[in-house]
Amino acid sequence: MLAGDAFASPWRDGQSGKRRNVLLIVADDHGYDLSCIGTAVRTPALDRLASEGTLFTDAYASVSSCSSSRATLYTGLYSHTNGMYGLAHDVHNFSLLEDVKTLPWMLKQHGYGTALVGKLHVKPEAQLAYDAWLLPERAGNRDVAAMGHAAGQWIRAQGDKPFFLTMAYSDPHRAGDASQFGNTRDWPEVPRVRYHPDEVTIPSHLPDLPGVREDLAQYYEAVSRMDSGVDILLRELAASGHADDTLVIYLSDNGRPFPGAKDNLYREGIHLPLIVRAPGARHRGLRNHAMVSWIDITPTILDWAGVAPPSEYRYLPLPGRSLLPILEQQKPSGWDEVFATHSFHEIDQYYPTRSLRTRRYSYFMNLQPSLRVPIASDVALSPSWKAITTTPGARLGKRTLDAFEHRPAEELYDLDADPDEVVNVAGDAAHAKVLDDLRRQLAHWRTTTRDPWMAGVTNPFGPTR
Amino acid sequence: MLAGDAFASPWRDGQSGKRRNVLLIVADDHGYDLSCIGTAVRTPALDRLASEGTLFTDAYASVSSCSSSRATLYTGLYSHTNGMYGLAHDVHNFSLLEDVKTLPWMLKQHGYGTALVGKLHVKPEAQLAYDAWLLPERAGNRDVAAMGHAAGQWIRAQGDKPFFLTMAYSDPHRAGDASQFGNTRDWPEVPRVRYHPDEVTIPSHLPDLPGVREDLAQYYEAVSRMDSGVDILLRELAASGHADDTLVIYLSDNGRPFPGAKDNLYREGIHLPLIVRAPGARHRGLRNHAMVSWIDITPTILDWAGVAPPSEYRYLPLPGRSLLPILEQQKPSGWDEVFATHSFHEIDQYYPTRSLRTRRYSYFMNLQPSLRVPIASDVALSPSWKAITTTPGARLGKRTLDAFEHRPAEELYDLDADPDEVVNVAGDAAHAKVLDDLRRQLAHWRTTTRDPWMAGVTNPFGPTR
Repeated sequence: MLAGDAFASPWRDGQSGKRRNVLLIVADDHGYDLSCIGTAVRTPALDRLASEGTLFTDAYASVSSCSSSRATLYTGLYSHTNGMYGLAHDVHNFSLLEDVKTLPWMLKQHGYGTALVGKLHVKPEAQLAYDAWLLPERAGNRDVAAMGHAAGQWIRAQGDKPFFLTMAYSDPHRAGDASQFGNTRDWPEVPRVRYHPDEVTIPSHLPDLPGVREDLAQYYEAVSRMDSGVDILLRELAASGHADDTLVIYLSDNGRPFPGAKDNLYREGIHLPLIVRAPGARHRGLRNHAMVSWIDITPTILDWAGVAPPSEYRYLPLPGRSLLPILEQQKPSGWDEVFATHSFHEIDQYYPTRSLRTRRYSYFMNLQPSLRVPIASDVALSPSWKAITTTPGARLGKRTLDAFEHRPAEELYDLDADPDEVVNVAGDAAHAKVLDDLRRQLAHWRTTTRDPWMAGVTNPFGPTR
Repeated sequence: MLAGDAFASPWRDGQSGKRRNVLLIVADDHGYDLSCIGTAVRTPALDRLASEGTLFTDAYASVSSCSSSRATLYTGLYSHTNGMYGLAHDVHNFSLLEDVKTLPWMLKQHGYGTALVGKLHVKPEAQLAYDAWLLPERAGNRDVAAMGHAAGQWIRAQGDKPFFLTMAYSDPHRAGDASQFGNTRDWPEVPRVRYHPDEVTIPSHLPDLPGVREDLAQYYEAVSRMDSGVDILLRELAASGHADDTLVIYLSDNGRPFPGAKDNLYREGIHLPLIVRAPGARHRGLRNHAMVSWIDITPTILDWAGVAPPSEYRYLPLPGRSLLPILEQQKPSGWDEVFATHSFHEIDQYYPTRSLRTRRYSYFMNLQPSLRVPIASDVALSPSWKAITTTPGARLGKRTLDAFEHRPAEELYDLDADPDEVVNVAGDAAHAKVLDDLRRQLAHWRTTTRDPWMAGVTNPFGPTR
């Protein structure tokens, strides 16, 4: 629970008087693709950050849809709790519940300056309590250098005031241009790192087709551009003098923007990069194998800042835990499961799923299994999807298109035997006990996190204001 | 189209200088149940209002869910256009799109005082631009006298300023008490009008069972209470001196709160009372048979007030028309069809349907027909539903429970032969041409009203702010 574990943290003792700044870097649709873990894409800045801090190898978003995931990052609440059931923008129009308090708001109550650079995609803006919104996202803008310099300028302007800055890149999200990834032009100060389709690593959820390779090559270029932007940003941080008193967290909102990843709770949709660099850490370049979740990010940052949520806050206790006490461990005990919850992506893309993932199993409860599984519009327009749907017999890795689009009410996968989650053992007698146990854990979690889709959570005669 | 027809209106000529006030009375879940049209419930005040104005016999909400319907009343836009796809309150959390301008906001720009008494159930509150929100709805509050007096006090306080007041009763919506309808106590100044189950009129969508009769009797008591409240309100209006310069509109948000009505686009869900009393009318006590819709209410009030929406408003032209030019006619031509659109009720009650109703036919396109049709939670807890589901062979009028819960992708009803909409002729060759024509009209309407569920309406690469 929040704050309980933090008292053992090395960052709590003897740190009085030192500014406790936070730089949260949120990439858009960046899958678990880093050169330091063996992907063919080149990410020198992120690799360096990992070598200076801790790379979490088993970090998971709690949902694989942009606004829902960011809402969880910024509230410490699952998306079925905080109201952000789907995308925030345009006609989709989902928003946080009115009484949800956000991380920047809580930090601001304690004297922090707060800023966002780039993409917000969470509503209402006022609940996020940013003092400044620099270079708000514009379709097509991938000027990562301008974003880094704007961040540096704002940081320096904070003077002695503690700050919380969120850098929210649009890369490597798809764009509506011919390359699909904003790669049809040079961007200031950053090199164009082009990839040949032959070089790319085919992830487990995609088939090896020329159209897929070409698409991945463009995605890699966007990842490299963002990596160059991270380099500029971290140099700005160093130049400001705050590298040694700023917690730096790098992560992505959801999985790579390819069929079978983004917008799915299967592993490739939610298994994402998480790098944490904390000044004062005694060990650098660690690989931490704890199973951690995006619901742990707000508690971590609050812990770092020494800030607690308001005591009367309706949503306490926050379901996540600070990562600081385990930051310098490799295999901490008690970090062996994560939950995930999907309801909508776009407003007309409804496919509610609740999930529990342990070391050994992943379990999915699909609440409306008669529905066809929707595919995010940008992914549906991708060269990869076109290649897959026009190549007879093409599969999403090992998964058939039919199995992807038509799922049963329950899915259970033995991750030892079947890490790609394609052989559903929910109907097997041999797994009956495991299934029963996971069902009960899921039901308990849905109730304690006030899942509106769980019977008994809402009151039909409550006030309507 | 808005304003075009109004130039023929008797209320436009020679009315300069006269205050153009508006009193909009919105009942909660009041079906087409008035003594003056033959229902057993006694509604003397509403009957009197009808005798002083025009009763529309073929008036329809464009959706049968509370927040969605109110959002349409207050914007002149269909709910799939204005963002209010389902209920606004609590965890359901639907809200208007940010750039939607509301009726009270538009009137306020032109110098009107605006107030709401009672229930809002539309978000965000600020977009409604009420100067005052009197006696905001509290669960269980049915003090219609207090509401009427508060309205009178506010009206008198407006002095010479033109005003727009919305009276939004909680009656006859179900309450969470033993009577189901707030009938377990006396309410100030209004008599308790009790009904015997033997007296009630069984509507076409319900079976004649004791539990249903008892439930209707309680509903009638709530309708009578509200009618007494309307009497007090109209006396307050008269006492203020504004009876002769105030347009009075009485209507309900959606159908009666019984299985097969509220929350359905079948006739009994959306065919509702509409009474309009306009000072200066030469004919009183008229029955007007135009097919009109709740999308026509905002244009009507704007016409009365002589106010146009902002010229650059993105959602022009408004889809509805002012009723003033036809107010004193009985069978005006060109008013022979209405559209309706349902997406959600509660957040976990998804059943999107689009509908077109003409004099002769009703057509329904169920967008996700594999889903079981949800039932609103308050209706699910009703004595009527309990009676129906525990009586073998009980039907929703002529409709079987199975047909109610499992509907095909398309429904077409010949309203001459089958006014209760139970014999689906969508598959009949004899109706193929009609079906094709209605499909095309529906598709055209969905496109022009920017239905997000229609392919091609949303842009996956648009900005996300």
